Amino acid sequence: MQKRPDLIALGRKIRAVREDKGFSQEGFSVEVGLDRAYYGGIERGERNVAAVNLMKMAQALQVEVGELFPALDELAALSKRRTK
Amino acid sequence: MQKRPDLIALGRKIRAVREDKGFSQEGFSVEVGLDRAYYGGIERGERNVAAVNLMKMAQALQVEVGELFPALDELAALSKRRTK
Repeated sequence: MQKRPDLIALGRKIRAVREDKGFSQEGFSVEVGLDRAYYGGIERGERNVAAVNLMKMAQALQVEVGELFPALDELAALSKRRTK
Repeated sequence: MQKRPDLIALGRKIRAVREDKGFSQEGFSVEVGLDRAYYGGIERGERNVAAVNLMKMAQALQVEVGELFPALDELAALSKRRTK
């Protein structure tokens, strides 16, 4: 399955915030009650993570949910690239 | 299935932004390529909507994805209520 650029960008943002907050991948997956391998897939952009888990992660990281997402203009640029 | 307060709050936010942008529920579900009944379930808090659809909706509404989510402190208050 070809990875989606928007999910890759989302995974990168989540990883950056997690690292910024000093969590290891292992520690954070336990903190939010997610399987370690599943969580790793989210950061690699392989999982279309759903709202409940996104809200759980934001609360565990103590950031607004929006901080886990790419900015609108980045999403627009990614969409253009996909349609070429 | 008992509805989750965080998904209800998410659905309300999405509805408010959609209405603010002047879309009907019908028109918006077509715009983002979602089944009308499924989309209605998102606004009622019955669907754990995933990241790809959230990013599609934000782009169609021309808002940052974070604007579709409840604020962190609202999520915290909702979580407290669930654990009582």
